[in-house]
Amino acid sequence: MIRFFPDADWLQPMRGLLTLAMVGALGFGLAGGSPAFADDDDDDDHKDSAPLTGLEAYYQALDKEPAYASSHEEAVAKLVQNRDIAIPYDYIATLMRIPNAFGEGAACVVCHSSSDPETSYRGLDLTTCEGIKTGATQPPARPLFEPGNAGDSSLRRYLRNNRMPYGVPFDAPRDTANIQTIKMWIDDGALNDDVFQEDVLPLFKDPMAFGGFQPCTDCHMSNQEPPSFHELDLTSFEGIMLGADAIAHAAIGEEPTKIVIPGDSAASPLYQRLIENRMPAGIEPSENRDHPNIQILMQWIDQGAKCE
Amino acid sequence: MIRFFPDADWLQPMRGLLTLAMVGALGFGLAGGSPAFADDDDDDDHKDSAPLTGLEAYYQALDKEPAYASSHEEAVAKLVQNRDIAIPYDYIATLMRIPNAFGEGAACVVCHSSSDPETSYRGLDLTTCEGIKTGATQPPARPLFEPGNAGDSSLRRYLRNNRMPYGVPFDAPRDTANIQTIKMWIDDGALNDDVFQEDVLPLFKDPMAFGGFQPCTDCHMSNQEPPSFHELDLTSFEGIMLGADAIAHAAIGEEPTKIVIPGDSAASPLYQRLIENRMPAGIEPSENRDHPNIQILMQWIDQGAKCE
Amino acid sequence: MIRFFPDADWLQPMRGLLTLAMVGALGFGLAGGSPAFADDDDDDDHKDSAPLTGLEAYYQALDKEPAYASSHEEAVAKLVQNRDIAIPYDYIATLMRIPNAFGEGAACVVCHSSSDPETSYRGLDLTTCEGIKTGATQPPARPLFEPGNAGDSSLRRYLRNNRMPYGVPFDAPRDTANIQTIKMWIDDGALNDDVFQEDVLPLFKDPMAFGGFQPCTDCHMSNQEPPSFHELDLTSFEGIMLGADAIAHAAIGEEPTKIVIPGDSAASPLYQRLIENRMPAGIEPSENRDHPNIQILMQWIDQGAKCE
Repeated sequence: MIRFFPDADWLQPMRGLLTLAMVGALGFGLAGGSPAFADDDDDDDHKDSAPLTGLEAYYQALDKEPAYASSHEEAVAKLVQNRDIAIPYDYIATLMRIPNAFGEGAACVVCHSSSDPETSYRGLDLTTCEGIKTGATQPPARPLFEPGNAGDSSLRRYLRNNRMPYGVPFDAPRDTANIQTIKMWIDDGALNDDVFQEDVLPLFKDPMAFGGFQPCTDCHMSNQEPPSFHELDLTSFEGIMLGADAIAHAAIGEEPTKIVIPGDSAASPLYQRLIENRMPAGIEPSENRDHPNIQILMQWIDQGAKCE
Repeated sequence: MIRFFPDADWLQPMRGLLTLAMVGALGFGLAGGSPAFADDDDDDDHKDSAPLTGLEAYYQALDKEPAYASSHEEAVAKLVQNRDIAIPYDYIATLMRIPNAFGEGAACVVCHSSSDPETSYRGLDLTTCEGIKTGATQPPARPLFEPGNAGDSSLRRYLRNNRMPYGVPFDAPRDTANIQTIKMWIDDGALNDDVFQEDVLPLFKDPMAFGGFQPCTDCHMSNQEPPSFHELDLTSFEGIMLGADAIAHAAIGEEPTKIVIPGDSAASPLYQRLIENRMPAGIEPSENRDHPNIQILMQWIDQGAKCE
Repeated sequence: MIRFFPDADWLQPMRGLLTLAMVGALGFGLAGGSPAFADDDDDDDHKDSAPLTGLEAYYQALDKEPAYASSHEEAVAKLVQNRDIAIPYDYIATLMRIPNAFGEGAACVVCHSSSDPETSYRGLDLTTCEGIKTGATQPPARPLFEPGNAGDSSLRRYLRNNRMPYGVPFDAPRDTANIQTIKMWIDDGALNDDVFQEDVLPLFKDPMAFGGFQPCTDCHMSNQEPPSFHELDLTSFEGIMLGADAIAHAAIGEEPTKIVIPGDSAASPLYQRLIENRMPAGIEPSENRDHPNIQILMQWIDQGAKCE
């Protein structure tokens, strides 16, 4: 989405800057003990005592680090997230109320406007801070997050995770025999047994198992990306149990993301992804999963979801 | 606007899903007596008692019904309109206050912010619920809608109907001799007389009759669409009096949309379309006339335009 | 961004209208003593006493004036700016609170939410009218504008002016030796001396002087546009001291825009452009610098920045 140039032909000489756009900024000044609100925030005063250095280190960092554009999204990450700027509830209230807050889509409060399940889906009231923190009141009642822990919240999943198969309509049925088969296999321990081999594994190769027209294994066929999205292999028991992003995570010393938790379908991403629609309903799956406002909402939760 | 795929080349295997995007969802689960807020709303719990069926019926429905994408717009239609979810005034207040609420454009309240016609166009105050319901206070004072009847409201016209000719600037003059000629012909009974044949009919073939550079009949030349938009024929008295969408409406047992109400120019779409600018002023005519927020605003009116 | 047509092939006959889109409206009716809120505002009543003229003058004006599209931006200029419609603080409060108010970007209040510099950049509180008018409270404290004078405000600069070089990341260092050299040269009187010739002038030809990969002189190489942006010549002392837009301004009887104020680096656009990031941080430099909401915010300031 980064458009650095208008379309006029005589802009040609500027195109070289595209290189810059691609390598972007690296925020290295934010590491290494630089105090919050130091002089790389935005102001026009220049401190005479400031070090007359920086440019060399900047270009060195551009050389060394993987390149990325310094977008509005990066700015929010660097200025708001990295410095843990306090997010006031007032801004969260705005995000709940306006359309297009997390990409093009309806406002949250259109469907979740009170704790009455007769007039508001799940009895979820996103119009007040208490309502947001209470979560769904319709049985089974449950919160959307625990304050301080955005990473494990269902709210994060709902805003980021596209329902699978990719592009399946939000109202494709979710209580089908096929989805039940997967649920029960997980709840029964996720064994490499006859049920798995005969009933579960073939579903991932079936183009019409889950409401789409293409098998899961068209996109998740090995532990290598590309071509396999998220390094996820749905063609074998071993691949499924290994989980996602094994190689990428290993490179940073982390475990793969398990997609099956034996005995617990509700906690298993494999099952969640088949039944949970990304919100707001009908949002295009290509919308930015790292939208700045999703990051800000998560930051507010991590900061304790304070109502003042 | 549906973009299902990022641009990376190795996404090629996923392109088949585009088919799915095109056929989309059909919402059949919402018909046939399924209770509101049944288990096709968005949640991750699976009821063990749920029927283990649905997939077959889903694919059958996809086969049978005309295909459409399950977009954010469809989601609002299915989840909010079809179930008549109560729209709180709070959300309407938001729509009046923010830019880009109905497509890219200025906020309504920029121009309509009080009942004083000296500082607010038409003395229309869209900053309060009472102001919205009162409508224009500048003589001739009149409301924008009758609560409970969004379909016949002028507000609906203003948000949906592009001024004609298509693309004419909002400030092209509207009190010209040509427009007056049409107005008076309608008010005089809309007869197939000499006035019509000599003064009115030629205007629709004149490329510069109404501020544009192309005759009306370039787009409205027969009762067949395509090529004639809205199956509207402005080349003959019979076509004009037949009105729009005769064939499409007949297929569902409805009458054509009359564009001339003899004796009543103010109620005649032919005249309205020449003088009424779509709102917000300057909005691109290609913006979605079925924008979800227009639907929601109409739903609020149909629900009685309640101020709580 | 004006899209006048959907994509269907059978729309071909309408393409001629593109001409109209290009010539657009000229708003001539707004000049020449037409009273505010005269009958070219948007309404459907037709005054029988209205003059039966206007179309001829309209087409003549289209012939005479340079052509432009009648966009949402033009509509705001004609309906709100030209008529000096009072902008209520309520709308300014909305602009501060919502994302994407001035193009795609974070909401102002995300970073500027209180007068406490520990939690809000510069101690700038954009959540209240008083806070907006107070400006930065962190030393050196200073306002963003003087009520009644939007043109000279730093707020205008911050919303419109892209940091240079074009596309440089917002967090590229700003206290480098090179930028200091320019600052000191200006503060020392901006003479055509050895410092200028040996230390300053070469920087504009150095592709990596300021965090980019292309020299300033690639885009600002003469007093002629095209190819030189803003008719700005950074290749010589004379060019730099002449300033920007000399020819364009002369055509309307105005002086060039000085980019160097000898002795006052803080007031010199040459220095400002190197250290001031456009807001919101990370906004794409290609976003509309004449965004309707920027115009409206400036209008509010020019009207006295009233808090009611």
